[in-house]
Amino acid sequence: MKLLARIHVTLKPAVNDPQGLAIAGGLHQLGFSGVEGVRAGRYLEVCLEATDRGAAERAVTEMCQRLLVNPVIERYRFELAEPAEVDR
Amino acid sequence: MKLLARIHVTLKPAVNDPQGLAIAGGLHQLGFSGVEGVRAGRYLEVCLEATDRGAAERAVTEMCQRLLVNPVIERYRFELAEPAEVDR
Repeated sequence: MKLLARIHVTLKPAVNDPQGLAIAGGLHQLGFSGVEGVRAGRYLEVCLEATDRGAAERAVTEMCQRLLVNPVIERYRFELAEPAEVDR
Repeated sequence: MKLLARIHVTLKPAVNDPQGLAIAGGLHQLGFSGVEGVRAGRYLEVCLEATDRGAAERAVTEMCQRLLVNPVIERYRFELAEPAEVDR
């Protein structure tokens, strides 16, 4: 079966986020005074073929641990979507 | 009221994505032969203070249009979460 994994990779809360600080500064300069903080992360969509949903979950978890995520400073979460739910 | 905007910025489907291709290549080299494609995007969490949900939606839309998104090659979507739903 074909599945789409939507993976969110974010910095752990205690980790300094210069990109997020820069974006927050830019938003303040543009007049968005209500902005209290910005955290920047990555978003990946992985289209994969797997025998079942469980196999896909294990594969995506292993992809995150072996390549996609730096476990020292980042954490991740993902959901799997069926092709019918995939709008692009 | 305090709200968290979870913003996804992705490349438009027709736009070449060298970062996604590189990730897909890396996953193939690691043995994940079921991977059929990867698209790389950005994920931003903006914590903001707004008078109501409608005002927050308008503000985040304007942030995306004025700073966060390159409308030539990217598109965006976002959802707003109440502080109670915010798990970090």
